[in-house]
Amino acid sequence: MLARGHWPAVEWTRGYNRATLSSDLVAAVIVTLMLIPQSLAYAALAGLPPQVGLYASIAPLLLYAVWGSSRVLAVGPVAVVSLMTATAIGELAQAGSPAYWALAITLAFLSGAMLLLMGLMRLGFLANFLSHPVISGFITASALLIAAGQLKVILGIQASGHHFFDLMLALMLHLPQAHALSAAIGLGTVAFLFWARRGVKPLLSRLGLGPRWADGLSRAAPVAGIAVTAVLTWAGQWHEQGVRIVADVPQGLPPLTMPSWDLALWQQLAVSALLISLVGFVESVSVGQTLAAKRRQRIEPDRELVALGASNLGAAFTGGFPVTGGFARSVVNFDAGAQTPAAGIFTAVGILLAAMLLTPALYFVPQATLAATIVVAVLSLVDLHMLRSTWAYSRSDFSAVIVTLLVTLAVGVEAGLVAGVAISLLLYLYKTSRPHIAEVGWVPGTEHFRNVLRHKVQVSPQLASLRVDESLYFANARVLEDRVNALVAERPQLRHLVLQCSAINDIDASALESLEAIDQRLRDAGVRLHLSEVKGPVMDRLQTTGFLKHLSGQVHLTHYQAVTQWAPDIFNVSEVGA
Amino acid sequence: MLARGHWPAVEWTRGYNRATLSSDLVAAVIVTLMLIPQSLAYAALAGLPPQVGLYASIAPLLLYAVWGSSRVLAVGPVAVVSLMTATAIGELAQAGSPAYWALAITLAFLSGAMLLLMGLMRLGFLANFLSHPVISGFITASALLIAAGQLKVILGIQASGHHFFDLMLALMLHLPQAHALSAAIGLGTVAFLFWARRGVKPLLSRLGLGPRWADGLSRAAPVAGIAVTAVLTWAGQWHEQGVRIVADVPQGLPPLTMPSWDLALWQQLAVSALLISLVGFVESVSVGQTLAAKRRQRIEPDRELVALGASNLGAAFTGGFPVTGGFARSVVNFDAGAQTPAAGIFTAVGILLAAMLLTPALYFVPQATLAATIVVAVLSLVDLHMLRSTWAYSRSDFSAVIVTLLVTLAVGVEAGLVAGVAISLLLYLYKTSRPHIAEVGWVPGTEHFRNVLRHKVQVSPQLASLRVDESLYFANARVLEDRVNALVAERPQLRHLVLQCSAINDIDASALESLEAIDQRLRDAGVRLHLSEVKGPVMDRLQTTGFLKHLSGQVHLTHYQAVTQWAPDIFNVSEVGA
Repeated sequence: MLARGHWPAVEWTRGYNRATLSSDLVAAVIVTLMLIPQSLAYAALAGLPPQVGLYASIAPLLLYAVWGSSRVLAVGPVAVVSLMTATAIGELAQAGSPAYWALAITLAFLSGAMLLLMGLMRLGFLANFLSHPVISGFITASALLIAAGQLKVILGIQASGHHFFDLMLALMLHLPQAHALSAAIGLGTVAFLFWARRGVKPLLSRLGLGPRWADGLSRAAPVAGIAVTAVLTWAGQWHEQGVRIVADVPQGLPPLTMPSWDLALWQQLAVSALLISLVGFVESVSVGQTLAAKRRQRIEPDRELVALGASNLGAAFTGGFPVTGGFARSVVNFDAGAQTPAAGIFTAVGILLAAMLLTPALYFVPQATLAATIVVAVLSLVDLHMLRSTWAYSRSDFSAVIVTLLVTLAVGVEAGLVAGVAISLLLYLYKTSRPHIAEVGWVPGTEHFRNVLRHKVQVSPQLASLRVDESLYFANARVLEDRVNALVAERPQLRHLVLQCSAINDIDASALESLEAIDQRLRDAGVRLHLSEVKGPVMDRLQTTGFLKHLSGQVHLTHYQAVTQWAPDIFNVSEVGA
Repeated sequence: MLARGHWPAVEWTRGYNRATLSSDLVAAVIVTLMLIPQSLAYAALAGLPPQVGLYASIAPLLLYAVWGSSRVLAVGPVAVVSLMTATAIGELAQAGSPAYWALAITLAFLSGAMLLLMGLMRLGFLANFLSHPVISGFITASALLIAAGQLKVILGIQASGHHFFDLMLALMLHLPQAHALSAAIGLGTVAFLFWARRGVKPLLSRLGLGPRWADGLSRAAPVAGIAVTAVLTWAGQWHEQGVRIVADVPQGLPPLTMPSWDLALWQQLAVSALLISLVGFVESVSVGQTLAAKRRQRIEPDRELVALGASNLGAAFTGGFPVTGGFARSVVNFDAGAQTPAAGIFTAVGILLAAMLLTPALYFVPQATLAATIVVAVLSLVDLHMLRSTWAYSRSDFSAVIVTLLVTLAVGVEAGLVAGVAISLLLYLYKTSRPHIAEVGWVPGTEHFRNVLRHKVQVSPQLASLRVDESLYFANARVLEDRVNALVAERPQLRHLVLQCSAINDIDASALESLEAIDQRLRDAGVRLHLSEVKGPVMDRLQTTGFLKHLSGQVHLTHYQAVTQWAPDIFNVSEVGA
């Protein structure tokens, strides 16, 4: 299945040299600085102890480097998947408890196993059924949901509420009980991080740093925010005034862990694991493709499934939780000049060092600071402009966006995703079930036939030409029957009906039966049915049946030939149509 | 909604005269003779007392005559719907009990209300999602299931078993306990009815009857079977030897009944009622359309929904059970010369007279005889040839047939129907998610471009032409991206990519984003993207977006023009392809 010549690791290690090494090392330092606060924060978002975020950024990065087809993708905990993890296991155990952590490990295992299986079975196309409108509605809603949840942490409010509207209401009702100092730390950090996005890079450049380092270090602003607020909290002993802090974080290597082998639990988690896998895969592949294309490289979706599967299995056995390729960190890795997956390996080493040495320094980090880094990160995912552009482009795509968005906000992430997929598939089926069927007429002076409602064309009372702008299949076959029945009932002079098949890419067995029924009914009514411009593959298949043999009319290469043969009078009757 | 000019009853009563009256009367007599045994038998199949079958053939016929758009459709109990009724309510009450009958009435009410609503909301297209392979698989499996169940009655075996394979096993195991006299009556009737199909008509003709009467009376063979076996049973007092008979059937007008208004019960029955409605509607409309076309008349599906809804509501309020338009009886009505729905009204009067006067004569009718009439009727619905022809035509249609057939036999009618619809929709989505994408090249001496793999064509190393044979939507957009990415990665000389859009009937928002991503990636790689032969409606929609403005290339009316402009060298390079 994975032939040796296709192992990405074999390819990129071949030409490895000092220049690539130095590029990869620089990128790794920058990404490590960015990943430490993100890992802590997303672990908190998932309801897990902070060190779990670090664990989930070590083995997955190493394993992705071996199997992944992207050279720059950085794998680890990401916002939406962390939220989905919290949703999936939040009902089954108390957040922060050992049982909860064990559930997260099992979820990572299931998701990894599913991704691996999907990769080996080449089922990557399944992710295509998540349409762009559904994904953007889902990501936007998830980001709003996450931001609202973190706002609770920032304000130090103990309000319950799982859905966006509950949460916002609870926030408003409990605002008077907000903890002022926590709020000041959190909102101060949010303000600093928003300013840092634009303000830090020019500052560092003015201090004489090269553009790559200036750009890279500006991404480490969250580290600065964490360091400053931790020092302030220690200095002012703010934790004694009610500011919640990270406190003790165990120091050391990631533990070796095992998922639960309880089949009943697997059943309970299966749907969540599948949705997490699909969302993670879609997010990861679209990041990877965007970056690969910039260097004329390629992402192989089925290989990505295998690599993400291995990463999640790795997370499961080293105390982590579900992971995927992150957008921001991969872009930073790319911009910082990472050339090969070795950058990922160096980053993993960096995080490993942090887990072994740095955790005591995290004691005084306020939880409000971590929440602030999440809020700033996820708000960049909110894309409300997309609502307007989708509305302008297509009502059915807009319906998919709005249903996904509202169901995610009002009910939850899993319900939102499922509702979005269901509505987009149903709308697509509905659309194809009512194909555009145009009656066409001759455009004088040409060999072309166009819609009688749009063009000045000539028609004959004895011959009708219909063009179906859709493949014929069971859901629309009867529509054509109805249209033909209506036509025959209202035109007593009709003797020939020609179907122009230029846009028919397939005819399934139902549609074939419908065509046979149409042919039979037309014959009963004294009308012959002809076909024109039938595509090669469609013709190949029709020839395996008796249809062409029993057809009352003929099959013509071009529509013009058909009309010339059966209604030459068309070329001298008067004009009709618009 | 139902404008006066569209009332079918207004149309056909206008030209009514003595000739039409006599045709309708003859047809009504023949159909009445056919309907009496069928009504009794299908009531038994549904687990209801025999008179209920008669009740279900009176009000529904009258109501259909007022609202229906078919002139010859005969409405009443039919085999598959009766089986579905038994399945739907069999778990909730004991067959034959008053509670069971009340459930059947409620089911008819719900089904009628759904049909009526679907008609008023013009949702008739929903039935199109039952594909022909699913319907034939379902009908064949239901017929086998019904036949196996009736075989149990014929053989007088008290075996349990709800699914086909259970039933067949139980029949074999209990065969030694079969009741010989019942079996002789039942199998004798089956043999007589099979013979009657071909043998009676020539016999009657030889006796001097006109062809219409000969044909019509041959359809009344079941009446003869019933009469003869009833007389024999009375003469031999066979019911004292264990032959089960119909026994007391209440005499009189259909009762006025009310459905249950228990909302919890409605919820329990809702899915069954919906499936019964859809199956009944599909069966009825296809019969109606086939017959209407023979006289250049038309069926309006949304009006049929209203008429069938009224018929089922009528059944619910007059002690009946779910009904629909039956195939055999409608064909007989048509062949016997029925001109207008008045024939249906006369038939209803005939059945009413039977319910009031004839029921004492039914006392000695053996249940095995009724079962025999059902077996003979449903075996004509079994179509195993369709398996072979579907296999030959399309593997995906065959999968839909076989899944429907096996799930219906092994699990039940409702599961089979749902599985069939699900599998056929999934297969369709799968098919459209992997569209045929051909690279095309110039056919020398023409303005045509054809698949490089099938034809001798010329191509240029700087320009690639792709033709996508499917509308672009979310499920296949990424396939095009992958294809384009691969093409660019493997052809360093590439400068232009032209998409020939002649078979693209729609581009949804996801596909638009994919095209934008493709354009951006191609631009990053130094390749320009052009479009050719874009359809009018697609172009209209693209023009509402910024896509065409930002496109790196141009939109060309024909593919030939695009290639002439961007790769004129194509016309003098060497030939490639098969």
